[in-house]
Amino acid sequence: MRYRLGLLYYHRQKERRMIIIGEKINATRKAISAAIAARDEQHILKTAREQIEAGANYLDLNGGDPKPGAEEANMEWLVKLVQANFDVPLCLDSASPSAMEVGLNLVKQKPIVNSVSLEKERLERFLPILSKHECMVVALCMADDGMPTGCDDRVARAGKLIKAITSIGKKVEEIIIDPCFFPVSAEPKSAVQVCQGIAQIKANHPGVHVGGGLSNVSYGLPARKYINFAMVAACVYHGMDAAIIDPCSHPIVPIMLAGEVLTGADEWCANWVGLHRAGKLQ
Amino acid sequence: MRYRLGLLYYHRQKERRMIIIGEKINATRKAISAAIAARDEQHILKTAREQIEAGANYLDLNGGDPKPGAEEANMEWLVKLVQANFDVPLCLDSASPSAMEVGLNLVKQKPIVNSVSLEKERLERFLPILSKHECMVVALCMADDGMPTGCDDRVARAGKLIKAITSIGKKVEEIIIDPCFFPVSAEPKSAVQVCQGIAQIKANHPGVHVGGGLSNVSYGLPARKYINFAMVAACVYHGMDAAIIDPCSHPIVPIMLAGEVLTGADEWCANWVGLHRAGKLQ
Repeated sequence: MRYRLGLLYYHRQKERRMIIIGEKINATRKAISAAIAARDEQHILKTAREQIEAGANYLDLNGGDPKPGAEEANMEWLVKLVQANFDVPLCLDSASPSAMEVGLNLVKQKPIVNSVSLEKERLERFLPILSKHECMVVALCMADDGMPTGCDDRVARAGKLIKAITSIGKKVEEIIIDPCFFPVSAEPKSAVQVCQGIAQIKANHPGVHVGGGLSNVSYGLPARKYINFAMVAACVYHGMDAAIIDPCSHPIVPIMLAGEVLTGADEWCANWVGLHRAGKLQ
Repeated sequence: MRYRLGLLYYHRQKERRMIIIGEKINATRKAISAAIAARDEQHILKTAREQIEAGANYLDLNGGDPKPGAEEANMEWLVKLVQANFDVPLCLDSASPSAMEVGLNLVKQKPIVNSVSLEKERLERFLPILSKHECMVVALCMADDGMPTGCDDRVARAGKLIKAITSIGKKVEEIIIDPCFFPVSAEPKSAVQVCQGIAQIKANHPGVHVGGGLSNVSYGLPARKYINFAMVAACVYHGMDAAIIDPCSHPIVPIMLAGEVLTGADEWCANWVGLHRAGKLQ
């Protein structure tokens, strides 16, 4: 009986797990782009390892390159390299359907597709791919008429995205709605609008995940990491359960997980105490 | 014209300033109690300096001692010592009306009295003292029937405290309502109730300050500092503008100030950018 309860407990904890996607293996970063071009395995593996050690439970892989065929080749190299060395699921990050297919055909664990949006062409090109593969998907509240404005627009766009993606057979639990994080330096009300949007989207669509690349919030300001720390706490307070972040920006991961202690999402603080016992809250 | 606008701006910034009370000079801490008993000036001054350098703009002074006359003597020694060495306003922390009077008669800058509550005897003993002195006051949502329960109870108690304290001539801007922070390990819903209470109290009573000893939220849990970081961000998001904290628990102060960037309370991020320029966001 103890054993079965233990299993049940483990299962529930897994279901509830915060999705923490390490963002650092991205060809828009100069050092990564150079490492990919030079097929420098050690640099990529070091970047993977440090993110996993900091608490990432998914790794984003972006091998973007405008040269014909290059992004497909980069995706193949990155997926094979990381999978050969780490037992971590991947977040395949590409605007190219063909590069995405290369990645999806190689993954050993259920990946996250990063990303679709309401932009008509992008959605039409990616929906058939999503329907063919076992995967989760990041869905951005962006459309052909641009970025979302305010809370209600984010909620409306999230509804449309969920409708489109579930219509091809995906479960709501396989969708991560990215409400689109704006720089507060340019849009002073946007952080509050995003937080309200997160709470509303979670309330309207039980089971859906919400989160995304939140460090955009501090763009243009000094001492960005502290703004990101405050934002991650505010977002988790409002129900955010996924994020694409630099997990090495310590202590952003412990702050995310602490947010779940505050809301009671981490029931009996069991996840928190377990992580501490495992030495993962340094 | 530039000059006058500059003055106006400075004035508004001062009005809006987050109240950060350094909690470390407190006789309930063993090292401080020993330093007070030994009249160890260097230990107290070091503890004062490190808190000011970390961003405290008030220092709490608590010289509690059950021996007759001892707390009054401790208060006198602490106030004189800190004031002789630092240009910082004080938060006089005592349950003893006579020790409080000793402190109030010595201060050079408008202090904070820490604290009153709705407990009948405590309120009756402290109101006459408050009415005699130029000061701010921390008012706890505690009463003779115990601690507050839920959000609404906190809001109701805050209203009673504000009524009692303004009835003796204090301004609402001179009151810091402490909603009472409970350990989430014992009361899993309390952190959310406190956040909702903060927002409601601020909405009901424009100009009042809200905040208090928030680190109680993590009592009984491991890796407490991260829970405190998440809580300070969530509270500032909801309107908290005062806190009694260990400012040396880095980066709790930058996270507090970043919270105001997110809500727009720090208009145009002017305070944030200014602090960065002054080298205060390390």
